[in-house]
Amino acid sequence: MEKKKEKISHAVIRRLPRYYYCLTELSDSGITKVSSNMLSKRLNLTASQVRQDFSNFGEFGLQGYGYDVEYLKSQICSIIGLDKVYSMIIIGAGKIGTSLANYQAFEKQGFKVKAVFDKEPENKSVRDEIPVLHISKLQEFVNSNKVDIVVITVPKVQAIKVFELVCALGLKAVWNFAPVYLSSENVVVENIDMSESLYMLAYKFNDLNYNS
Amino acid sequence: MEKKKEKISHAVIRRLPRYYYCLTELSDSGITKVSSNMLSKRLNLTASQVRQDFSNFGEFGLQGYGYDVEYLKSQICSIIGLDKVYSMIIIGAGKIGTSLANYQAFEKQGFKVKAVFDKEPENKSVRDEIPVLHISKLQEFVNSNKVDIVVITVPKVQAIKVFELVCALGLKAVWNFAPVYLSSENVVVENIDMSESLYMLAYKFNDLNYNS
Repeated sequence: MEKKKEKISHAVIRRLPRYYYCLTELSDSGITKVSSNMLSKRLNLTASQVRQDFSNFGEFGLQGYGYDVEYLKSQICSIIGLDKVYSMIIIGAGKIGTSLANYQAFEKQGFKVKAVFDKEPENKSVRDEIPVLHISKLQEFVNSNKVDIVVITVPKVQAIKVFELVCALGLKAVWNFAPVYLSSENVVVENIDMSESLYMLAYKFNDLNYNS
Repeated sequence: MEKKKEKISHAVIRRLPRYYYCLTELSDSGITKVSSNMLSKRLNLTASQVRQDFSNFGEFGLQGYGYDVEYLKSQICSIIGLDKVYSMIIIGAGKIGTSLANYQAFEKQGFKVKAVFDKEPENKSVRDEIPVLHISKLQEFVNSNKVDIVVITVPKVQAIKVFELVCALGLKAVWNFAPVYLSSENVVVENIDMSESLYMLAYKFNDLNYNS
């Protein structure tokens, strides 16, 4: 499985979370078998696309029998890495940072927030079990704790400086909520860019009105 | 300009917000001229990619002279539709919904929140100027107010029902924060999918560790 992973296209990988949601819903509804047709309808893809995607990961289904929901779910879970536990820290205890720290859905999936850092750590409304520490304590914390993922939720003007610090500390994965393009050769980054999404919606809305 | 717009690829359109950010930063720093080289470095693209993207929108720059920052910014602003004002309503007054209602950065860019709707509209901490109304008032509100964009911030289990209601009311643009795939022929949808992003980060993190 690991050997195959390297060849899988980015487009296929991007669809995995949607497959995972869908299979979780089926599983929660007590459905044990699913056809590529049924999956494709639920996901707005073609059945052959679904079969082709799954063939990337080896033989998960049998023609005419469909796919075993639990098995397929566990395979995709393992490919994404949702069968592991990740230690996260959040830098920036503003609205987004504290909301994320208090949001427990990700924790249930193995993404555990270990600490929040801020320039002004006082009086931040974060769950009791998560310490809010001064940003000057970051290096010490990283040296003595396992940190897999850093969530950056500082304002735009501080994001690049914080990212440089994170890279210098040897951390490897950044989930960025600041509206700034962050990239580095040795660090993987995912951006949540709400402005980009809203701008795209505005564009599509105008395009729809223009064409109708 | 409008005529040309139809031919522009989705990939180019997706880059417009990043161009817009970058030009805004240059403009704020008092820079008036910019070369495709400089833009490409800031955006991690090739200079020819930048020139090709801009050629889609007509001739914005002169070889050897570079691009006029203000003019380019205003053109991209107009292509996206950021020179207009949009009326938004938010359905779901939970953490995300109230945070968005209270977040004024989008409002400054012309995205005005007119009302928030919820099953339990009492005691929601939203800015005074934005009414929080019972969901039963939605149809009445839509009939007597211009609504361009609907933000869906209800829990997953209610999202599809809310989306059907929104479609039935003839609304045309949905910004969806629920982790559910929403689509309809006559409605444009943009999704903010935090789980998908976090899963992708986990995948890339594991891939990095495996290959290093």
